[in-house]
Amino acid sequence: MSMKTSRGERPLRPSSIAKREAILAAAQEAFLAHGYDAVTMDSIARDSEVAKQTLYGHFGSKEALFLELVRSQTRAASERVMNEPPPIAPDDDARSVLGRVLRDQLDTVLAPHLLALRRLVIGLLAPFPDLARELYEHGAQRAIRSLAELIGRLDDAELLAVPDADRAATQLNWLVMGEPVNRAMLLGDDAARIGLDTAAHVDEALDVFLAAYGR
Amino acid sequence: MSMKTSRGERPLRPSSIAKREAILAAAQEAFLAHGYDAVTMDSIARDSEVAKQTLYGHFGSKEALFLELVRSQTRAASERVMNEPPPIAPDDDARSVLGRVLRDQLDTVLAPHLLALRRLVIGLLAPFPDLARELYEHGAQRAIRSLAELIGRLDDAELLAVPDADRAATQLNWLVMGEPVNRAMLLGDDAARIGLDTAAHVDEALDVFLAAYGR
Repeated sequence: MSMKTSRGERPLRPSSIAKREAILAAAQEAFLAHGYDAVTMDSIARDSEVAKQTLYGHFGSKEALFLELVRSQTRAASERVMNEPPPIAPDDDARSVLGRVLRDQLDTVLAPHLLALRRLVIGLLAPFPDLARELYEHGAQRAIRSLAELIGRLDDAELLAVPDADRAATQLNWLVMGEPVNRAMLLGDDAARIGLDTAAHVDEALDVFLAAYGR
Repeated sequence: MSMKTSRGERPLRPSSIAKREAILAAAQEAFLAHGYDAVTMDSIARDSEVAKQTLYGHFGSKEALFLELVRSQTRAASERVMNEPPPIAPDDDARSVLGRVLRDQLDTVLAPHLLALRRLVIGLLAPFPDLARELYEHGAQRAIRSLAELIGRLDDAELLAVPDADRAATQLNWLVMGEPVNRAMLLGDDAARIGLDTAAHVDEALDVFLAAYGR
């Protein structure tokens, strides 16, 4: 992934950064409320209180703006999940290390604006296949790669016995995320969180995972 | 769930059933190709070669037709998955019984027209929340209920040791379905199937599941 913003590598001045943020915020609200087709560059310029010329200077088209919005949101979320797997302390065990990471990850994945973006992008797979691919790469796949790295370290520390860390990470990810994400996609954002005891849910997934891969 | 077709309980004559099928087939093709908003009752009447009066006699509105289409497809699929859990033979083991069911289920879930409907319904959660709920109930939830029943029988037969069959069924479902369905939603129908060795994928999920719940 080496896609750039419409401004490429040129640094932005502070006022320009603020306008860019205002545009992205207004665009997000509009796209999530009305869907892609119903939103126009005119309405985004109005909502974000910037001149149309400024809007087009930052984002050359509605499509470019939409792409950048989804990209920046998914990247921000995936950095929140796990920028760097936590170091393993001498008295750590696999359950406590993995539990901490998975609870954070579940909270991040279930953030309402991310779920709404995910629904929007899934519905737009046919016209925007590259965008959906980015959500795949920066979403679940990035979380799974980070988990695989952590699982590899736990294996090195002899706290797990894992023949294939990528496979184990994929299995653990979906043990935890599968049901809440499916609920969120089809029942709405609240249904994924209300009544979900994150800690208990993660613990139950880890019961299964550690039965297979624990030492 | 006790929603009826627009014709309620009145039985249809054979010619009427054929017209109804033609309408549903044309509607499915149109909705999947162009999205909900772009399709009209006029275009569906034309594509299915029925009179508009006949179309409205079967389905009172575009919305009713869309609801019935998704409902009939998801029901047909969920009946294909597992109408009745298979009986357990004296020489069966849990891996072979569950493996058979899960391979069938994966093939059904990954049928392209169902994946496309799923994407469409997810993108339309805001205007059609009841429809998405039906896809949830008749989709993953029905598969999970059937799996739970089967897991309960395997527990009764002392081929598994499962304290909570519903939880175990949910975990097994997402161990198997999570990654392929996520790929299908974001990378397209082919990405979910191409390169997927269904039997090996199910076996790897069962390795984890049986480590936790096997005897």
